[in-house]
Formats: sequence, C-alpha cells, structure tokens
Amino acid sequence: MNEPLRENPYSALPRVFHEPSRLSIMSALGGATEGLSFNELKEQCDLTDGNLSRHLKTLEEAKAVEINKRFVGARPRTTVFLTDAGRESFVEYLGALEAALQRAAEAMAADSPNFNFLGGLTEQL
Amino acid sequence: MNEPLRENPYSALPRVFHEPSRLSIMSALGGATEGLSFNELKEQCDLTDGNLSRHLKTLEEAKAVEINKRFVGARPRTTVFLTDAGRESFVEYLGALEAALQRAAEAMAADSPNFNFLGGLTEQL
Repeated sequence: MNEPLRENPYSALPRVFHEPSRLSIMSALGGATEGLSFNELKEQCDLTDGNLSRHLKTLEEAKAVEINKRFVGARPRTTVFLTDAGRESFVEYLGALEAALQRAAEAMAADSPNFNFLGGLTEQL
Repeated sequence: MNEPLRENPYSALPRVFHEPSRLSIMSALGGATEGLSFNELKEQCDLTDGNLSRHLKTLEEAKAVEINKRFVGARPRTTVFLTDAGRESFVEYLGALEAALQRAAEAMAADSPNFNFLGGLTEQL
C-alpha cells in the first residue's frame, strides 16, 4: 500500500480535463456525436454563459473541442464538437482518473477486509 | 444520456481534494493509520518541500489533516494524519468522483455496445 508512487497516477491527470466544469463539458460532448449547441451545453452542465465561454475557450485552445458558428436563417448558432484528438486524450484522462480513484479507494479500504475493487470501467473505451 | 444533469455529480467535487497533488496526499494518508512523516509523504507523492508544505497547509485549514510537530531526541519530526472528518469527507469525495467518472465513461461509450460499467468501487468504504 505504501510503496512509493513511482508511476504516479496523479501526475497523469491533465488539468485541462480535471477541472470539474470542463470534465462535465467533455462528458456531455462525449455522448453527443452531432455536437451540442451552446444553450444545450449550458443547460446540461449547469453553467452560466460566462463560465461556459471561458471553459470552451480553454478546451478549444487545447484543441479538444471545435466550435462551429453559423447562421440558421437570421440567427447565429454555435455548435460544439469533440475533436478526434480531444476524444482520444479524454479517454486517456479517464483511464488515469480511474487508476487514481482505484488507488485512493484501496488505500481508504486498507482496514476494510471486505473491500473488493471491481474496476475495468474505462478499459473498453 | 443527454438528460440535464440536475443532480450534477461534478458540482460535488470539492476542490480541496480534487487538486491532483492533494488527491495524492489524501490517498497516501488514507493507507497510513499511524500517519506519515513529512519526508515519507514527500517521497510517496513525489512533491517538493515547498509544494508539499503548501498543500498540507490547505488541507490543514480545511481540517482534513492534522500536523503534529515534536522532537525525537534533538531532531524535530513532523507527522501528518488524516482527521476523522477528513477521512469521512474524502470518502464522500471519492464517491462523487466515481459517479462523475461513471457518467463520463458511459457517455464516451455511447457508441460502444459492449461497454459494461462494473462500478461499486467506493460503496464499501
């Protein structure tokens, strides 16, 4: 349990995805192959306009999402998609997060002999 | 998959534990009922003196850890423990993290029919 964390799973948690609102945005987009509009994302992630814009900018700079602005009739519509690279990095991040969670749960269960880690959450992604 | 996140699992991720280095510190302490010395923590979490001190201060202010300084012979020794409240909140955090990870993994696996979430990682803590 207390061996040094040489292959430290925590250092593999890129901050761009680890921030809770961005984790939420990436998850919402992961389930939406057609992309999501700004308003759908705002609703699903329970964010304000300002916060959503700020986090989308960070994710766009990291090339994790693509933001498509076009006109539908006279009205502008913003649609946000995961990029292929973003999807790939996010799946990698989820694997690292699962490893960190597994390690933490095992540590916390050290005096709980019935503890049984089931795991395998991300291995089929 | 795309229902609004009314019971948003992401908002239940307290930043005090979510920061990767602090997640690492809490996990190391979770497995150490006798506490860990400053140097053991530094080694296990792969942190510099300055970073470890800074994160311990944050965790101490949140009453998640207790820092015990005493002399062993002529030498000062710092031992760090989880508090009972810290252990409880951290287990709660791990449950919220598992819920967020489960939701994200399910979203990313939306077009992978063989995906099977095993889960139950933190329910016995």
